[in-house]
Amino acid sequence: MSVNPRKGILSMPEYHPPLAGRNAMRLDFNENTFAPSPKVLEVLQSTTLEDLTIYPEREPRERIAAAHLGLAPEHVLLTNAVDEAIHLVTYTFLNEGDEVIFAVPSFFMYDVNCMAMGANVIRVQAEDTLAFPYERLLAAITPKTKLIILCTPNNPTGTTIPSAQIKTIAATAPHAVVLLDEAYFHFFGETMMPEIDTIPNLVIARTFSKAYGLANLRIGLLATNTGLMKHLRKAASPYNVNGIALRALEAAMEDTTYLDWYCAQVTTGRDKLATALKEMQIPFWPSHANFLLTRIGPKHKQLIAAMRTRGILLRDRSSDPGLQGCVRITIGVEEQLEKCIVALRESLSEINWTPADAKIVDTETEPAREYE
Amino acid sequence: MSVNPRKGILSMPEYHPPLAGRNAMRLDFNENTFAPSPKVLEVLQSTTLEDLTIYPEREPRERIAAAHLGLAPEHVLLTNAVDEAIHLVTYTFLNEGDEVIFAVPSFFMYDVNCMAMGANVIRVQAEDTLAFPYERLLAAITPKTKLIILCTPNNPTGTTIPSAQIKTIAATAPHAVVLLDEAYFHFFGETMMPEIDTIPNLVIARTFSKAYGLANLRIGLLATNTGLMKHLRKAASPYNVNGIALRALEAAMEDTTYLDWYCAQVTTGRDKLATALKEMQIPFWPSHANFLLTRIGPKHKQLIAAMRTRGILLRDRSSDPGLQGCVRITIGVEEQLEKCIVALRESLSEINWTPADAKIVDTETEPAREYE
Repeated sequence: MSVNPRKGILSMPEYHPPLAGRNAMRLDFNENTFAPSPKVLEVLQSTTLEDLTIYPEREPRERIAAAHLGLAPEHVLLTNAVDEAIHLVTYTFLNEGDEVIFAVPSFFMYDVNCMAMGANVIRVQAEDTLAFPYERLLAAITPKTKLIILCTPNNPTGTTIPSAQIKTIAATAPHAVVLLDEAYFHFFGETMMPEIDTIPNLVIARTFSKAYGLANLRIGLLATNTGLMKHLRKAASPYNVNGIALRALEAAMEDTTYLDWYCAQVTTGRDKLATALKEMQIPFWPSHANFLLTRIGPKHKQLIAAMRTRGILLRDRSSDPGLQGCVRITIGVEEQLEKCIVALRESLSEINWTPADAKIVDTETEPAREYE
Repeated sequence: MSVNPRKGILSMPEYHPPLAGRNAMRLDFNENTFAPSPKVLEVLQSTTLEDLTIYPEREPRERIAAAHLGLAPEHVLLTNAVDEAIHLVTYTFLNEGDEVIFAVPSFFMYDVNCMAMGANVIRVQAEDTLAFPYERLLAAITPKTKLIILCTPNNPTGTTIPSAQIKTIAATAPHAVVLLDEAYFHFFGETMMPEIDTIPNLVIARTFSKAYGLANLRIGLLATNTGLMKHLRKAASPYNVNGIALRALEAAMEDTTYLDWYCAQVTTGRDKLATALKEMQIPFWPSHANFLLTRIGPKHKQLIAAMRTRGILLRDRSSDPGLQGCVRITIGVEEQLEKCIVALRESLSEINWTPADAKIVDTETEPAREYE
């Protein structure tokens, strides 16, 4: 006899990120590709052995994070990275059979977490331009909708959602939680954070894995009004975030000079990479995040292999809905970007890629229309 | 309009460990009270800023942890401490209305996690001696039982469960998962780990917060057969454990000399504290963990306050079922223990405590019978 898990666990997809063998230039996972603030190293160096034995205290750092965001402490919950933030929202609010709506392609962990709760997931395909499918998402809202997940800038497309659309969606579904994933906020600059007390169903997720460069330490947060927060806080373990991450967060948030420098490297690099891609005639989509999504066509695997032999990792997004033949390139600091562009030119030449390749449709699914 | 969470979230209790103001001798939370292996400090010192930007890879350290336990890698899942281990078991297997059985008093996170899933929790009160209520727990098993949680040595009593009883319970409920929490294993020495392939419904949880001294870093594990593990692994985020914890784990596991020294400090200290408690005529229960549970009686709060003014934190367990007037004392290293005993004598004198106090029942509930 074997013991069966819940139905949701049986039906949920598995997520196996291709992590092995990443001893190379990491332009594949949208992490900070360089380093967090040097102040974080001081945290590591000054940590004592006894510090490591003590249960971490999340609350004092929640106060600091809240102040940094201009929020009251009761509005912020620190989480074991944004993965746990998403998990807590689905775990807290979703009953089996509840409807969840999100646009695709987007972050795969939405599928994983919603399906694990046995939710009925409504995936709204992006526009042909990969723009956010606003009208169709609005039309998908029903009385059974319990959760709407919006990601802006969206991974893996880099597209954004106008704040007016977010507001209308939230107002159209007052019976549902609207989870707004702002993981890539720092490379964009627009946030709904000031609205958490005026939009009663808005929950915002942030991560410190991207701009702040703390992916290894696992820290993220949820911000919402006290009405929704009381449930989320109850559902979270009191010790969900480790003590090194809590101390590093404080140091990283204080060093705004470093954060600004890194974000400027990325946004400048994004323009440079866009220019280079145009020169190479590789179609791509405009992005407000720290990556650009390109359409390579049927030779996408060959390009990734050719780049890997040059010590650079890119991420194949071909299996995402509407992204046949697409490859995502994370934007790092200047020196990394220069190497990436050189390697791209060499690799395209090596695989005999031509702009015509990007137009070849090698699957039954109609691809999204590429940007210029 | 406000959005309602799941029923389980509404009904679950909140857990607010009294963490604030712990800048004192920490004999309150059963953590390692001293330090982890010095090898762990080398891990911190050798971590680079770039290391912190990279998503943690759990799998290589799972292989190491499994080898250390004499298990195959596929039998081990590393978790964000034992809290996440318990959460993953309840999240994976419990449907709303499923029955869960565990003995009380025990670790409060069982209540929190099972009730969050909407389970029907059957709490079996310990014997008057605080011994594991074997016969009554067996009798509580029904066809609806989906999970049985066993904690040995048990927190906060220090009592253990004979392996023959664990085997019979597992065999009597083949339709249920048996979660065996071995958080305090290192202070006891008996484990069911070799049985995970022969008992098909056994899942074992371990933590590295106690003997290994890594409570601040959050790392624990689940061990079970591949049949149950495939579901648990699916339910876990691929990045649930931070990279510092993963590297520290490897260092801490290698340093068996240090681990043995710390565990010997605790077991020797346990005997010394027992002798001192007998001299002071404070009733206590025999323990196989790194703590002793004492019965102080109605002056329990006064004792804790008097100890706090002497820089020592103890934990009030009075609100646990059957533990009216009980205080738990974590056992640290020799120097800490000596100070604790001196402070105990002073505090008892200060509050005019006499052995007769321990016999006073100040609630309507019949207290458990104290040990000698």
